[in-house]
Amino acid sequence: MRPVRHRFFVQDAGAPGTTVVLSAEESAHATRVLRLRPGAAIGVFDGRGRELAGVVSAINDQVVVRIDAEVPAVPEPAVAITLAHAVLKGDKMDAVVRDAVMLGAAAIRPIVTRRSETTVAALERGHRVERWRRVALASAKQCGRAVVPNVLEALEFAPGPAWFDAAGLPAPRLVLAEPRAEGLPPMSPARIERPAEGQATLVVGPEGGWAPEEIQALEGSCAAVTLGPRTLRADAAAVVAMAALFAVWGVE
Amino acid sequence: MRPVRHRFFVQDAGAPGTTVVLSAEESAHATRVLRLRPGAAIGVFDGRGRELAGVVSAINDQVVVRIDAEVPAVPEPAVAITLAHAVLKGDKMDAVVRDAVMLGAAAIRPIVTRRSETTVAALERGHRVERWRRVALASAKQCGRAVVPNVLEALEFAPGPAWFDAAGLPAPRLVLAEPRAEGLPPMSPARIERPAEGQATLVVGPEGGWAPEEIQALEGSCAAVTLGPRTLRADAAAVVAMAALFAVWGVE
Repeated sequence: MRPVRHRFFVQDAGAPGTTVVLSAEESAHATRVLRLRPGAAIGVFDGRGRELAGVVSAINDQVVVRIDAEVPAVPEPAVAITLAHAVLKGDKMDAVVRDAVMLGAAAIRPIVTRRSETTVAALERGHRVERWRRVALASAKQCGRAVVPNVLEALEFAPGPAWFDAAGLPAPRLVLAEPRAEGLPPMSPARIERPAEGQATLVVGPEGGWAPEEIQALEGSCAAVTLGPRTLRADAAAVVAMAALFAVWGVE
Repeated sequence: MRPVRHRFFVQDAGAPGTTVVLSAEESAHATRVLRLRPGAAIGVFDGRGRELAGVVSAINDQVVVRIDAEVPAVPEPAVAITLAHAVLKGDKMDAVVRDAVMLGAAAIRPIVTRRSETTVAALERGHRVERWRRVALASAKQCGRAVVPNVLEALEFAPGPAWFDAAGLPAPRLVLAEPRAEGLPPMSPARIERPAEGQATLVVGPEGGWAPEEIQALEGSCAAVTLGPRTLRADAAAVVAMAALFAVWGVE
């Protein structure tokens, strides 16, 4: 088994030859969980695509790291998918965020749809976006990405081209259709062309699916993707769709 | 929202006009969890592809169902994938089985590899295969399949064509390569041809990956599939690979 080099997030990674100080949280993880000691070789990434190799040079209240070298970052997918995902019940959204980051999502926009059992105000009161940002960071650490996808503020969903533009959700826009969703003529991923612009939006609904008026509005702005006749768990649909689209597009 | 018709598994579904009795477990689920009453319209499936519509006709110790009609079953994928998956730690294999059934696996063969942290004997003592069969049944109910994929007995992995034949694992055989697995020339799913025979085996390793001697033996009998440079969680790799392969093959 290849030795695993632990990776830590730092906001400003600095240049080789400089030192950086890990945050209180990252320091606690390094010393209390991983029990690293001075001299340990570690990785450092800045969440915006820089990956560096370093060594723990001192452990005071926080961990001091000497940066040794810039190293090649794990490449990002050639098509940047922004995932606009309806907020699911309980903590299922944590799994959606974790897996979307692992699959290579460029950004995640939580949305509140007609059948989401929450509101934007409730999400704000619960500091849910902050939580999902921590989940995204943890997943980026684990899957080896040097980019931490941004979890954007939650928005109320009001489908239509203007809303998508205002929400920063690039075209082409693909909406995941349920097996028996009516109205939209759904296409298998094999028929969805790789976006020439190198970006796309994937829209996924909540447990209860789309309301009829949402389906109607989505028709004008989105192509519908279907994932076969089996009913996917709501928290698994996005990962299956992203895996299918990247595979068809030959994107790694 | 479309009303959900609850589905129950019966070993022998019988013909329209006959009655069937739900098992003690299915009866308890129908009455105690779902609180169904006589007259409730339900679905019944036999796990081998038959789907029937019926009505709860009596509730004694167990639930009696009058079978009304044969109904179209959710179609099975045109390529039958048998998933040979290394047993993972803790209860992570439950998630693998659940998701493989949801994606449409035809059968699941748990395997014990060099770096699996268990043995076939320990799995037998723990009645793990029986547990995974219950997970497979529950997942088939939830995803709408009328087929419950068989979870085969766990086997020690000894890669090579003879072992694959003896284990009932059909060719072509695809092994999931880790991002940096050495030895095997890995191919993206986009380059894997749809199997002409309508069947295939997907082999997925444990958390620690393959031992060098396993990689060497796999080279002679399997094509290696790679899923991009990000490290997938061990319990997510199979679902991502199956979604990718089905999408590339245009299989629903």
